[in-house]
Amino acid sequence: MKAARIYGEKDVRVEEVEEPTVEAGMVKVKVSYAGICGSDLHAYHHGLSIPLDGPDVLTGKEVPLTLGHEFAGTIAEIGDDVTGFEVGEKVAIEPLLFKEDDPFVKEGKYNLSSQVGFVGLNDDGGFAEYAAVKASMLHKLPEGVSLEEGALVEPAAVSVQAVKESQLKIGQAVAVFGVGPIGLLTILAAKAAGASQIIAIDVSKERLAKAIECGATHTINSMDEKPVEKIYEIVPRGIDVAYEAAGVQPTFEAALQSLKKEGQLMVIAAFSKPVTVDMVQVLMKEISITATLAYRHIFPDVIASIASGSLDVKKVITKKIKLDDVVEKGLELLLEDKSQAKILIDLTK
Amino acid sequence: MKAARIYGEKDVRVEEVEEPTVEAGMVKVKVSYAGICGSDLHAYHHGLSIPLDGPDVLTGKEVPLTLGHEFAGTIAEIGDDVTGFEVGEKVAIEPLLFKEDDPFVKEGKYNLSSQVGFVGLNDDGGFAEYAAVKASMLHKLPEGVSLEEGALVEPAAVSVQAVKESQLKIGQAVAVFGVGPIGLLTILAAKAAGASQIIAIDVSKERLAKAIECGATHTINSMDEKPVEKIYEIVPRGIDVAYEAAGVQPTFEAALQSLKKEGQLMVIAAFSKPVTVDMVQVLMKEISITATLAYRHIFPDVIASIASGSLDVKKVITKKIKLDDVVEKGLELLLEDKSQAKILIDLTK
Repeated sequence: MKAARIYGEKDVRVEEVEEPTVEAGMVKVKVSYAGICGSDLHAYHHGLSIPLDGPDVLTGKEVPLTLGHEFAGTIAEIGDDVTGFEVGEKVAIEPLLFKEDDPFVKEGKYNLSSQVGFVGLNDDGGFAEYAAVKASMLHKLPEGVSLEEGALVEPAAVSVQAVKESQLKIGQAVAVFGVGPIGLLTILAAKAAGASQIIAIDVSKERLAKAIECGATHTINSMDEKPVEKIYEIVPRGIDVAYEAAGVQPTFEAALQSLKKEGQLMVIAAFSKPVTVDMVQVLMKEISITATLAYRHIFPDVIASIASGSLDVKKVITKKIKLDDVVEKGLELLLEDKSQAKILIDLTK
Repeated sequence: MKAARIYGEKDVRVEEVEEPTVEAGMVKVKVSYAGICGSDLHAYHHGLSIPLDGPDVLTGKEVPLTLGHEFAGTIAEIGDDVTGFEVGEKVAIEPLLFKEDDPFVKEGKYNLSSQVGFVGLNDDGGFAEYAAVKASMLHKLPEGVSLEEGALVEPAAVSVQAVKESQLKIGQAVAVFGVGPIGLLTILAAKAAGASQIIAIDVSKERLAKAIECGATHTINSMDEKPVEKIYEIVPRGIDVAYEAAGVQPTFEAALQSLKKEGQLMVIAAFSKPVTVDMVQVLMKEISITATLAYRHIFPDVIASIASGSLDVKKVITKKIKLDDVVEKGLELLLEDKSQAKILIDLTK
């Protein structure tokens, strides 16, 4: 079968490999759609988050590995000791890998395991015709949720978790800094959670147009306008929750300044550098700064929200490409073209 | 009467002034004890938080003003329209000033008023034989709560509020960075709230000895030992809540690093400079960073906790001085002598 495998920094090859074998407790999925994530870009452009120097602590695997942790497909084969699934069923994959005997995992907080990894970074993933994963990673897609939408459950889970764990209540005002795929999905989630005003801040007018499609009530292009000033014009008391999905000093600062007293700054982005924080402002406004890492126990709710129509995740798709084009029209394009949001690899054709 | 009045930076004079007059809605208190606070030091040493350049926005007053916002005494005279008090009753004063028609005040969150001030900084306070304050600022001290303890209700309220608003639950482990008066009171409050392990970090061995008296289970002198390393030796999983009562980069960083996953960093100190924060650590550990400003609606609980014996606030007193000595043995000494915690001005003699 064909698979896009990462060998190292700037080295992803689409090549013929053997189909994965299905061990006990595992299921083989015929991949239909797979999304390209920021982590895939970090792995490709900077060699991050992949086992380059010997076996991975969680999986024992090392490069080359098939990329792809946002994917959905149909069940092709079922391993021994697996019950409750049938060949042909549509499933989305929850790709988190963790240490089973970790104290946090025993508390059910598997995303806080001392070791966390992903199918598609620390093990073979979904940029391939087939993927073999643990049956416990599968979530069935009901009638009315397409396989395209299924590939978006994973990134949507990140945003839904962030909104769920934030202090947002119905009727409040929020701002989303950075409207790449995660920012856009956060807008969808904040809207579904009842935010009355959703202000999107970005530097790309195409992405801001997408933000409006996703439910933003206002947009600010920080190339043309001062975000903080503009936010206070829209919401004079300040915003209740700021979602930081950009991860740089100027957006972090603007987020902090835009918050009303008792407001919350929820960090979703991975910051590449430390930020400087004015703690006096945090104190005087009794602000809380917090973050969520990935997700836990939330795929069923995300899938149900997609099914009910309250989370129209399809809106974040800006392009569909073939597996053969994953480097040029995917990993390379996403770095250059800031108008892109989610690019899906279409494996159905 | 005698009063210690601030004229400006490095200019506090103990001088004869007229006794305050008691207007309608006000009560005249014969001051028994008054504590010197960090804010008094900032006012004296740096001219901060006092109306130096014209009338105060909240009170219309300007320097010279009588310092002192941590005080207790007995009722000497009761103004018109005041009910529920009798001459001779022991009271502690809640000195917060705020804008009555502020939206946050209307929600009961008077400490979050757009303008906040203090009796003793923005208006005449308690470093005097008598003080006239609004009747609404009085809290009666029951049998068993002394006037010395009464003068400690205000700083204790800051610490009790911080502990109450933190996520600390019975049995958890905490660290208190900086054990000046607020840090020590935070140790008392954390102990009263059920913390099982309380680690005190400071640079003064005298203060750390006080910390043990207040209920710290472990102390770390950061002049001799590495706080983070030592904390993980004591609590291998990391601490649940870090109270930041020092307010500098090294303590903030150590606090963040010492937290376990899902831990909380509660800022109580006023930081004089911005801090640099590694947001990746915040994200990977799902840490929350938050702060509380002063207090609200908590004096009665603090007084009840002192009365019940669960909050032995007297332990933070390191010295009692006369009003005449407030500059030399108070405002000047506190800057030089890091072994001091709370210095009370004794006005009973």
